[in-house]
Amino acid sequence: MIDRLIEDIEAKKNPTVVGLDPTLEMMPEHLVEKYLGDKDPEAREDGNKTESVILNIAGKGSREQAVMRNVADMFVEFNKGIIDAVADIVPAVKPQIAMYEKFGTEGIRAYNETCSYASEAGLTVIGDIKRGDISSTAAAYAAHLGGAEVGGMVFDTWIEDAVTVNPYMGSDGIRQFKEECEKRRKGMFILLKTSNPSSSEIQDLVLGDGRTVYEAVADLIDEWGSDLIGRYGFSELGAVVGATHREQGEKLRREHPYMFFLVPGYGAQGATAEDVAGFFDKKHRGAIINSSRGITSAYRKEGRAGNEFADAAREAALRMRDQLRAAIGME
Amino acid sequence: MIDRLIEDIEAKKNPTVVGLDPTLEMMPEHLVEKYLGDKDPEAREDGNKTESVILNIAGKGSREQAVMRNVADMFVEFNKGIIDAVADIVPAVKPQIAMYEKFGTEGIRAYNETCSYASEAGLTVIGDIKRGDISSTAAAYAAHLGGAEVGGMVFDTWIEDAVTVNPYMGSDGIRQFKEECEKRRKGMFILLKTSNPSSSEIQDLVLGDGRTVYEAVADLIDEWGSDLIGRYGFSELGAVVGATHREQGEKLRREHPYMFFLVPGYGAQGATAEDVAGFFDKKHRGAIINSSRGITSAYRKEGRAGNEFADAAREAALRMRDQLRAAIGME
Repeated sequence: MIDRLIEDIEAKKNPTVVGLDPTLEMMPEHLVEKYLGDKDPEAREDGNKTESVILNIAGKGSREQAVMRNVADMFVEFNKGIIDAVADIVPAVKPQIAMYEKFGTEGIRAYNETCSYASEAGLTVIGDIKRGDISSTAAAYAAHLGGAEVGGMVFDTWIEDAVTVNPYMGSDGIRQFKEECEKRRKGMFILLKTSNPSSSEIQDLVLGDGRTVYEAVADLIDEWGSDLIGRYGFSELGAVVGATHREQGEKLRREHPYMFFLVPGYGAQGATAEDVAGFFDKKHRGAIINSSRGITSAYRKEGRAGNEFADAAREAALRMRDQLRAAIGME
Repeated sequence: MIDRLIEDIEAKKNPTVVGLDPTLEMMPEHLVEKYLGDKDPEAREDGNKTESVILNIAGKGSREQAVMRNVADMFVEFNKGIIDAVADIVPAVKPQIAMYEKFGTEGIRAYNETCSYASEAGLTVIGDIKRGDISSTAAAYAAHLGGAEVGGMVFDTWIEDAVTVNPYMGSDGIRQFKEECEKRRKGMFILLKTSNPSSSEIQDLVLGDGRTVYEAVADLIDEWGSDLIGRYGFSELGAVVGATHREQGEKLRREHPYMFFLVPGYGAQGATAEDVAGFFDKKHRGAIINSSRGITSAYRKEGRAGNEFADAAREAALRMRDQLRAAIGME
């Protein structure tokens, strides 16, 4: 994963990953009408269109199944629009599985269809799944990278090039993912210093030896990933470091030269291109910056019509690319 | 969740939760033949029945979809057999979502059908999902407890009474689940000291103030759960503590009287009823002990025929109940 990602970042001169985190609120009106509306003119008049209208959704199975199927199909159509709009200018997408999982089995189907479509478009797919467990359970989760074997055949039940993983359980939770990274040239990003305010509650606790918990985790990630370093000097085992932690990110960059950072928190959480410039090394490598709503909801922020959502996303992605290029001096 | 769970433990005099963690290896032969085999007599003779046979699976969609659908249906039938066999003698089940997620969208369907069947059988369903994320993502994951709202209606996209949650990101990852615990009388178990050997790598790091990381997490869980204490003095925010850590469990029991423990690691990971006796308080309350393969694969360990899997599970669950009762002096 890591070599290909770095090469694609350089080919496109853009260290951006687009977060595909759909919500109902984010959906353009024409998609809401198509999938959750609108056959009953009377229902329109009571001011709560969607509520009245989804009662009319029909199809196989229960009403719940039908509503969830339509939500899932709507998310897929939206995501395909975004992917088509940005595939030639960004190297990667990062679907956040929680936004799909919210809608149950159908939501998971939409997640898989999104990953599959992005992969076919040539993008690196980083599944933001934040899984973490032990032994046989970790092995089962590792199917995200390695597939599921049934009767001697391996089926790719998930379509991801890399996933995010939680380190709290230690190397038992890492090992099985790592084996798949090695076997299938996949990657993983281990939660290190997350972008949220309360990340301090555990990650910033100070150990007896003076390190913080997250600094100790960084040392572990170095150790775990030291034998999977690719041709550009970065390990397949990267780390998640929030853009909101400028100083910590710069220090981690200096102290962990082999560690590739997946960086959330840009834009919506307030961090700027200047804040993340120090997450890169002198060759402009070592990090990829995520933006989700800042790109996918740009049409809304700019007050544009819903059917311009893809155009607006492309323009926002180009602006972000140019801001990052300028901040890190990538030419 | 917590009051009902405690009452059901006492009604059944059994602090056991049965882990529903299906694997292909665990499936009885008659179910493998039903779902993954066996129309081709020639295939039987080459010694690799399943491999040859699943090629014959037909149905809607691709072969992959058909195979996954059949694996999912097999897991559901197996789980229903286990649930029917133990529903009157145990208070709860704990499906481990990873074992289902391995098989993609169809696997998730099997997870949901399992949760639904167990819930209808009157069991408390503890979803072992170990999720953890922040802000809008945490809110999406909280649909596991709170459902998904579409057009003013709430749909229960998941059927769980409680879930396991990873604390690494701090209270931002807890808050949204907790709100659903409060609104809908649900519960959560936060990873504290996990049963695996490498849990020491992060959880046992010693802080400047002398506490270990997991002890600091325990203090946070106390703080987070202090306003959701039920009528028996236990919080809806419990903790996962491995049965393999006898001394640590006993100390946590003394120091955190309001914290209910979900305890994995019994049996398969080597811990005994005596090891977990100290996880309970003087009223025999405060913990529920998980066994997965020790119950669901009992038929195999005992060399019994596959079609006795449910009987063997019931007998194993009764033995475990009696061992726990004796060890903690529950009459």
